[in-house]
Amino acid sequence: MRVEDLVRGVLEGKRRPLARLITMIENEDPQASEALRLLYRHTGRAHIIGITGPPGSGKSTLVTRMTAEYRRRGRTVGIVAVDPSSPFSGGALLGDRIRMQEHSLDEGVFVRSMGTRGHLGGIARATSDVVRAIDASGKDVIIVETVGAGQSEVEIIDIAHTVVVVDVPGSGDDIQAIKAGIMEIADIFVVNKMDLPGADRKVSEINAMLDLDQKMGEWRPPVLLTNGRTGEGVPELVDKIDEHMVFLRESGLLEEKGLQRSRDELHQIMEYRLTRELLQHLRGRPEYERAIKMIAQRHDDPYSVAQRLIAEFLVELSRSGGGDEDGG
Amino acid sequence: MRVEDLVRGVLEGKRRPLARLITMIENEDPQASEALRLLYRHTGRAHIIGITGPPGSGKSTLVTRMTAEYRRRGRTVGIVAVDPSSPFSGGALLGDRIRMQEHSLDEGVFVRSMGTRGHLGGIARATSDVVRAIDASGKDVIIVETVGAGQSEVEIIDIAHTVVVVDVPGSGDDIQAIKAGIMEIADIFVVNKMDLPGADRKVSEINAMLDLDQKMGEWRPPVLLTNGRTGEGVPELVDKIDEHMVFLRESGLLEEKGLQRSRDELHQIMEYRLTRELLQHLRGRPEYERAIKMIAQRHDDPYSVAQRLIAEFLVELSRSGGGDEDGG
Repeated sequence: MRVEDLVRGVLEGKRRPLARLITMIENEDPQASEALRLLYRHTGRAHIIGITGPPGSGKSTLVTRMTAEYRRRGRTVGIVAVDPSSPFSGGALLGDRIRMQEHSLDEGVFVRSMGTRGHLGGIARATSDVVRAIDASGKDVIIVETVGAGQSEVEIIDIAHTVVVVDVPGSGDDIQAIKAGIMEIADIFVVNKMDLPGADRKVSEINAMLDLDQKMGEWRPPVLLTNGRTGEGVPELVDKIDEHMVFLRESGLLEEKGLQRSRDELHQIMEYRLTRELLQHLRGRPEYERAIKMIAQRHDDPYSVAQRLIAEFLVELSRSGGGDEDGG
Repeated sequence: MRVEDLVRGVLEGKRRPLARLITMIENEDPQASEALRLLYRHTGRAHIIGITGPPGSGKSTLVTRMTAEYRRRGRTVGIVAVDPSSPFSGGALLGDRIRMQEHSLDEGVFVRSMGTRGHLGGIARATSDVVRAIDASGKDVIIVETVGAGQSEVEIIDIAHTVVVVDVPGSGDDIQAIKAGIMEIADIFVVNKMDLPGADRKVSEINAMLDLDQKMGEWRPPVLLTNGRTGEGVPELVDKIDEHMVFLRESGLLEEKGLQRSRDELHQIMEYRLTRELLQHLRGRPEYERAIKMIAQRHDDPYSVAQRLIAEFLVELSRSGGGDEDGG
């Protein structure tokens, strides 16, 4: 399939081209970059919601309930389940297949799981690209669900407009961890499994922590009770998520976040491409291979060598009269 | 303290300068880079061992036992405990303090915990730098212990010469996960808590998986039984780790790994510095800020903008007659 056809299919909101593009993103297919470039201008419309919390807090069930609620309100939904601890990928997770089944006949829902592939930097970038692809396909809401493994939570704020942190009654020992790590990224707190004993106390504890937080801005994260099993509290959660988007828009934070995101992304792409140019320049040169050997044998250090090679690269470019945009 | 004095203290194997340098690395203090540059030629002597496995598999206890065994054999030990899910850092973990206590009067042991600080790419780089600092301080063996959170295990092979994967009897459901994710990076398997029922079966299961592995080279990972609580099996584990280093040396893999490591590191440093040059070049230019706005508003895409800015950067450098190594 040509990239143009793939892009058209995604823009028409069709499930199969979108699934294919995501597989290409995961496989780092060069055509995926071209597709994303063409799709870029059609992105930026979805409300991207991050859901995170410890394992066993019932995130998946809650996300399924939220999806049903969004559909009831006539909105389309994309779900990206990121599990860095899972070696599986491509919608093969059991929970995923169950969810797929529930919405399998509904073209307004698209579900995708992403497992670990190589390094986490890779999965963060891939997730960002996958969210963008789903965004371009026209989904109104995209829910990115991450297992609370510490790092993914921190990275979710680079992608999401609204971060929902899920916790459960009890689990008092985690308070410290939540306070130090996740607290700052939460826009909304949810105490799920509200039928378990200690739910109200948990809400109080989180509120008490919020009262201590000095850095809080105009938005005070609400603390909500839900029951993912019965669906209780889910409409209120969806209301609050909507409210947060209104806040982002009216406060100017949405625009600010968008600019920051664009800046970061531009930097990442420039870094990648500039380095590629440098490596193309160095590849196969005997002095380059010699330098690596000198580093490995501790006769030289990589910091000094890097400085030297970059200086040589730039001088040589200046002599040759500019970059080899066409030559490489 | 001047960098030269800090470096001298580290090279003399003193605990306090080493601890201070590690704090500087964690805080991304620019002086840390200079110290690491000066220390680089004194690195590459330690045997770096990665220990990973699921939470609750008794890694910490096992590492304490291994440390005692290495000390008995007259070797000095550095321990770096990486816990990406922990917001704590700087040796504040409880288990860490207990271990510290046990070896607190022994100058031959250095223990350090690293928690999460920002993104995981950051923690991987910081861990690598911390290991290097301990290496320069003259420790014979450096054990890097990571919680089995999926990603850290994969990254440990970039640092470690020998990777030990710890599992426990039972936990049969994890087989798939281990098979797909961690299997390939293990040089030695350990079934810890060998006194629990099912230990022998676990060994058989892992061996059966190893028999299925097509990609296995000359080194077939041994599967050992240990009891971290009593110390049973720990001398044999240390023997096997030594044996693996002999194998790496004699097969030429040690040299090969070292070259690859040097190459990767040089690339990372060049990428970082070249990008810094580009950003210094762009900073404050109105057309740069305009381009970011165009991306945020979806009037342009970051891929096209990146290509244009890099081309302009290189052309401008060529006109100005070379890199601004001194000017920036």
